[in-house]
Amino acid sequence: MFLKNVWYAAWWMDELTTRELHPRTIADQPIIFWRDDQGVPHAVLDRCPHRFAPLSMGRRFENGVQCGYHGLAFDGAGGCILNPHGPIVPALQVRAFPLVERHNIVWIWMGDADQAEPDQIPDLGFADRAPSTAYSKGFLPTAAGHLLIVDNILDLTHADYLHASNLGGGAMTRAKPTIEVRPDSTLFVEWLVNGDVIPPFFLSELPYPDKPVDIWNSVLWHPNGAMKLRFGATTTGRPREEGIDTLAAHIATPETANSTHYFYFNTRSFRLGDAEYNSQYAQAMRYAFSVEDKPMLEGQQRRLGDADLLDCKPVLLPTDSASIRARRVYAKLLKAESGEAGPTEHEPLAAAG
Amino acid sequence: MFLKNVWYAAWWMDELTTRELHPRTIADQPIIFWRDDQGVPHAVLDRCPHRFAPLSMGRRFENGVQCGYHGLAFDGAGGCILNPHGPIVPALQVRAFPLVERHNIVWIWMGDADQAEPDQIPDLGFADRAPSTAYSKGFLPTAAGHLLIVDNILDLTHADYLHASNLGGGAMTRAKPTIEVRPDSTLFVEWLVNGDVIPPFFLSELPYPDKPVDIWNSVLWHPNGAMKLRFGATTTGRPREEGIDTLAAHIATPETANSTHYFYFNTRSFRLGDAEYNSQYAQAMRYAFSVEDKPMLEGQQRRLGDADLLDCKPVLLPTDSASIRARRVYAKLLKAESGEAGPTEHEPLAAAG
Amino acid sequence: MFLKNVWYAAWWMDELTTRELHPRTIADQPIIFWRDDQGVPHAVLDRCPHRFAPLSMGRRFENGVQCGYHGLAFDGAGGCILNPHGPIVPALQVRAFPLVERHNIVWIWMGDADQAEPDQIPDLGFADRAPSTAYSKGFLPTAAGHLLIVDNILDLTHADYLHASNLGGGAMTRAKPTIEVRPDSTLFVEWLVNGDVIPPFFLSELPYPDKPVDIWNSVLWHPNGAMKLRFGATTTGRPREEGIDTLAAHIATPETANSTHYFYFNTRSFRLGDAEYNSQYAQAMRYAFSVEDKPMLEGQQRRLGDADLLDCKPVLLPTDSASIRARRVYAKLLKAESGEAGPTEHEPLAAAG
Repeated sequence: MFLKNVWYAAWWMDELTTRELHPRTIADQPIIFWRDDQGVPHAVLDRCPHRFAPLSMGRRFENGVQCGYHGLAFDGAGGCILNPHGPIVPALQVRAFPLVERHNIVWIWMGDADQAEPDQIPDLGFADRAPSTAYSKGFLPTAAGHLLIVDNILDLTHADYLHASNLGGGAMTRAKPTIEVRPDSTLFVEWLVNGDVIPPFFLSELPYPDKPVDIWNSVLWHPNGAMKLRFGATTTGRPREEGIDTLAAHIATPETANSTHYFYFNTRSFRLGDAEYNSQYAQAMRYAFSVEDKPMLEGQQRRLGDADLLDCKPVLLPTDSASIRARRVYAKLLKAESGEAGPTEHEPLAAAG
Repeated sequence: MFLKNVWYAAWWMDELTTRELHPRTIADQPIIFWRDDQGVPHAVLDRCPHRFAPLSMGRRFENGVQCGYHGLAFDGAGGCILNPHGPIVPALQVRAFPLVERHNIVWIWMGDADQAEPDQIPDLGFADRAPSTAYSKGFLPTAAGHLLIVDNILDLTHADYLHASNLGGGAMTRAKPTIEVRPDSTLFVEWLVNGDVIPPFFLSELPYPDKPVDIWNSVLWHPNGAMKLRFGATTTGRPREEGIDTLAAHIATPETANSTHYFYFNTRSFRLGDAEYNSQYAQAMRYAFSVEDKPMLEGQQRRLGDADLLDCKPVLLPTDSASIRARRVYAKLLKAESGEAGPTEHEPLAAAG
Repeated sequence: MFLKNVWYAAWWMDELTTRELHPRTIADQPIIFWRDDQGVPHAVLDRCPHRFAPLSMGRRFENGVQCGYHGLAFDGAGGCILNPHGPIVPALQVRAFPLVERHNIVWIWMGDADQAEPDQIPDLGFADRAPSTAYSKGFLPTAAGHLLIVDNILDLTHADYLHASNLGGGAMTRAKPTIEVRPDSTLFVEWLVNGDVIPPFFLSELPYPDKPVDIWNSVLWHPNGAMKLRFGATTTGRPREEGIDTLAAHIATPETANSTHYFYFNTRSFRLGDAEYNSQYAQAMRYAFSVEDKPMLEGQQRRLGDADLLDCKPVLLPTDSASIRARRVYAKLLKAESGEAGPTEHEPLAAAG
């Protein structure tokens, strides 16, 4: 069960080329995406209402798409624009989905179209402001539920173990995060730690590699699966401006209950024009996310099967607080939206802290 | 759920060689086929009654088949002809299925053997009369239910879109078919159109390629999945004999609910002795059916999952009339045979015509 | 449904190396095996109690194993030995399974640890006494339920058909076995036959290949799936010592309901120091078990699907007596252990004998 009245990241903008049809399942719905001749993107259910052929097996037609089986064509609003077999009756329509292009992403609204308000797209404007030599992105089709990916990011202590050789070091485990659930149903978690060690990957970027650092690390989670991450460090006691600062986004768009379209992009405040370093940076992140995170998330899902994590009564630790609170927000929104009960609430084990 | 008291096309006659065992699932039943030493074909359930080993993992034995596991052997009537471990008791038998060889096909009867009447095999005698240089055949294992294949053939307007470059042209869409359900539970649909264009593949076969043509196109459907197709065209106003004429069969034998053994063969009235042209003809048909039809049918099935098309409330068009009426006949026969209710009846949208 | 209070063969001892983690599913439970620094093997559930990550995706830590996701570590008793995120509370534990190393096999106890008594491991001491040049072993991951493998061994008449060219000959079919269910819930079946023919593979090992032989063949079955096989033959009327004698074990450890870890090993009384012959011997057995038995067992399982053989009402023969009686013992033990009803009892067809 997924939230519907949210904007989901569906494609990188530059992936949606003009002449091709782009099928992708979002939140269990098969959807076909295309750009019209003016470059405007459209999305409708990838299933002809006539005989349920996938429209993505057809072709672009005028500004819409034509079914390859019997020739019915539909525009981006889902209306029939060609019925070679008779008049166009009202039943000949296919569900259309609102789209917005922003921050290099095509966002899709899976719920009530009347409520589709572009302002609800999370602000990831830092992506737009980053020069191309300080920006990189990636996409990981992941065989794990979207909430497992959210759990992963909301507990960054995992970096100390899963990414020990590149993004870890122990500082996250030693930090005590502060967590804030905000009125707009986002959640902000921040780890601040002074006089600790910097993760190996960033060691070379500080002026005094042998001195301790002060670290700021935070995640702003949105219920649509978009998470904005900030990580920075400076030599202990020195101003933040003398250190390094990075902004990234990780976005978990549900494909099905147990599979996720995992988008991420990275930006930084240093070596802004260094294309070679940008390439190393992209490669290091890709390694961490695809070789370390993804297999672990998929392993977790295999152990869970079709069960929800919390229904399996995991032993919760204090470091799970942010993810548990985000899951509660998600369950509450889901309940409000669907009128159905979400998963039961679970408290971290008090004694385990 | 499939009809049982019908003859299903199971194999091409020339595929059933004498020494080998030939396993194939028909209507959910695993069956083993073989020829005895006199060349007579036999079929029994591919499951030893002793310990359920597949008999097809055994070997030919006398005029029957011997289980490879513990040596029990059965003849073509399903009777035990060897029990190395004791006397042959009545329980030691395996279900046998009546077979008939006709029209280059081995037909199998899946229902009550007492009702197996060879006269019920659809008359496809044109296959026998065609010279080898005007005959070609093909087989497509198709991951789609047999009724989707019937739907496809009973609405030949699809040729104008799915086969636009070879078998289309628009004439079928412009034609208005006549449909007749006959007392023998067959259905005949005919598209006649005058002064129209001929499909691209046949263009070179007419004396005046730039003149309009009169077209006759028809399908005779039988509840066992066999469909006889006739397509012909002649220069408008001229006798049929001056044009071209073709006869073909498409036969959809259910393997499981969502997979089908799709047999077809082609014959024609022109260039009867031209082996080179026959090869081009076979290749063109193979392309249309395997590269164009089969993927579309399988895409349709993926969208339907395990649901029946009509239960999904498709928007029906006038061109669906023949297939809907054939489905009704099928449902009625199924109900009569099984005593269970078939799928609900659905009317094409009157307003959509 | 499997017996739990038995010792299951889990690994060859020499497969469990010291530094690696060894995951394997036994009786539907994912389990991780490892050796500690003293070489002692351990086994715990392969699922971190925190977030259900597979522990096998982590690493060895002190004498235990550390989860690769958030760094929790557990020892071989399942107790938490490291929680980087807070105190070690009692809930932080993972189920441990008793292990015993014996007869070159690591045995695991899946039931109540208090009842884990090493004396209950079947005596396969002949494996320990065999010189390396008269010992060979093999492992077959088999997509068939463990009871099908037991059935196979308890009815050795199958050798006359399935292994006709190497281990058959017809003597087993002609023999009448004696069957004994013993007070310790084992079953002993013995085929004795005099003046018969020796299986082809052993022909060259007898002094008078053209003379008839007396054969002794037996299986001792244990409810944990371990079966001890003895096969020997001597020239008719001569003492056993002048003939050949072999001992082997076949052990069927359930992985899931329809898949089995199939272990076997072979020893013999002749050509004890002949490494070259030992290699031929190993190869002949591997051929028979992997090319002949395994595909047949998997074919049987395909025909059964998820159904139990006896529920499918097979026609039982006198040769099925041993396997049917073993299945009854198994069902009785299962019922006693779980308080649930086992499969219905079935009698071999009296008339078929």
